[in-house]
Amino acid sequence: MIGTNKVKLINSLRIKKYRDKNRLFIVEGDKLVKEYLELNAGVNMVAGEAEWLAQVPDYLLDRAEQVIEISSAELKKLSSLRTPNKALAIVHMRSDELKPESLKESLSIVLDYIQDPGNLGTIVRLAAWFGIRNIVCSLNSVDLYNPKVVQSTMGALLHVDIYYTDLEKLLSGAVKTGLPVFATTLDGISIYKSTPVDRGLIMFGNESTGLPAGLVKYADRKITIPSFGNSGFGLDSLNVATSVAVVLSEFKRPGQ
Amino acid sequence: MIGTNKVKLINSLRIKKYRDKNRLFIVEGDKLVKEYLELNAGVNMVAGEAEWLAQVPDYLLDRAEQVIEISSAELKKLSSLRTPNKALAIVHMRSDELKPESLKESLSIVLDYIQDPGNLGTIVRLAAWFGIRNIVCSLNSVDLYNPKVVQSTMGALLHVDIYYTDLEKLLSGAVKTGLPVFATTLDGISIYKSTPVDRGLIMFGNESTGLPAGLVKYADRKITIPSFGNSGFGLDSLNVATSVAVVLSEFKRPGQ
Repeated sequence: MIGTNKVKLINSLRIKKYRDKNRLFIVEGDKLVKEYLELNAGVNMVAGEAEWLAQVPDYLLDRAEQVIEISSAELKKLSSLRTPNKALAIVHMRSDELKPESLKESLSIVLDYIQDPGNLGTIVRLAAWFGIRNIVCSLNSVDLYNPKVVQSTMGALLHVDIYYTDLEKLLSGAVKTGLPVFATTLDGISIYKSTPVDRGLIMFGNESTGLPAGLVKYADRKITIPSFGNSGFGLDSLNVATSVAVVLSEFKRPGQ
Repeated sequence: MIGTNKVKLINSLRIKKYRDKNRLFIVEGDKLVKEYLELNAGVNMVAGEAEWLAQVPDYLLDRAEQVIEISSAELKKLSSLRTPNKALAIVHMRSDELKPESLKESLSIVLDYIQDPGNLGTIVRLAAWFGIRNIVCSLNSVDLYNPKVVQSTMGALLHVDIYYTDLEKLLSGAVKTGLPVFATTLDGISIYKSTPVDRGLIMFGNESTGLPAGLVKYADRKITIPSFGNSGFGLDSLNVATSVAVVLSEFKRPGQ
């Protein structure tokens, strides 16, 4: 049985304002909740159905500050998933202060005004897969702790650091220190002809409008994924998450 | 003003059974409806708001068998979009009989049991971008003419042929004729080490379960996108659409 105050807290965490105020967010489902416990990733509370709790080892449950048994009906009321899945956790946000020096020695992704939660989630998953530690988002990008983002990262959130900051400041700082900056645009050099590097910032823009000139001007190099199809109607660009996939693969592939 | 029969027809086309029976599907929004007219892609009816119709050239509207002016309120009732966008069209399905010989001379994508409409839409868009003409789907894959698939292809549907067929039959036929077959799995050769070819079938599996052994057995080669990250929780696989992006980029990139 879950108390009224917890129900109120969980419902409030659907809204960014209350997530930020409490520095807490929600993770849902058997697999994801277990992953947050396995990595001891600051779990504040686990609410699970009796059968689910019974099969999670005690040493994992002990990592949560609080464990509550809830009924399937209670979980259904609390869940934001279409098909609620046995457990839900409240998790502490990590510290998210950007240390620009942490960007100097590796490749990082910079995202301007990404609006779709599914896209951000997919990009986080790609970053984890391709060994990218840092993602920097513009302040007007979708919130990382949006439930749809959290669920679509599939746990990759635990392997990537994501920051929100003023991109103009970040980029002008990078230019001063000589950190390479790449902008993905429709009129750049083919990524297959552009020599990849192992450090620097790779910028991707909004789903509809791409990168604004005000950010592209900071780039040392504009890069483009060339189309191999017939040009024509309905072929103006790739989805931003699939663009990130292609660019990361090309930068990370061995044998350059 | 749109008649009751048309309203009934449009609403029925949300359901696969009626799409198949009538061999018609729905396309929505300013840009997409114009693209179907520009490519003269079998538009049965265009329903547009007065202002929208006024700015579409007559020679384009003449390509629709019927043009109807509708009010914003009527469109809102008919639309499956959260934000209806000025126009909606009923379009004839193309003939979709698979000619296996059409697969012999180029690279094609084979999809087993893809369930998410957004994934199929994104894969169609990727195929068009990378110049892949044919996609073959298992009979239990999501319907191409599902409104969410159509909208997420962003017009790329006009550049790619998609077929639904029994994959075991297709693959056993391919093996007999010596057409190379690739299966994407988690235990194959790195795609960066596997010599790409310019003809053959590349198979991708279901979002959760991947490819079944019963299909993998037909493959000449199992291929894998290696992870560059720390292995660990929350990193079992990439989303299927981003996997398609990486594999197509690697197969199509010049200078192999």
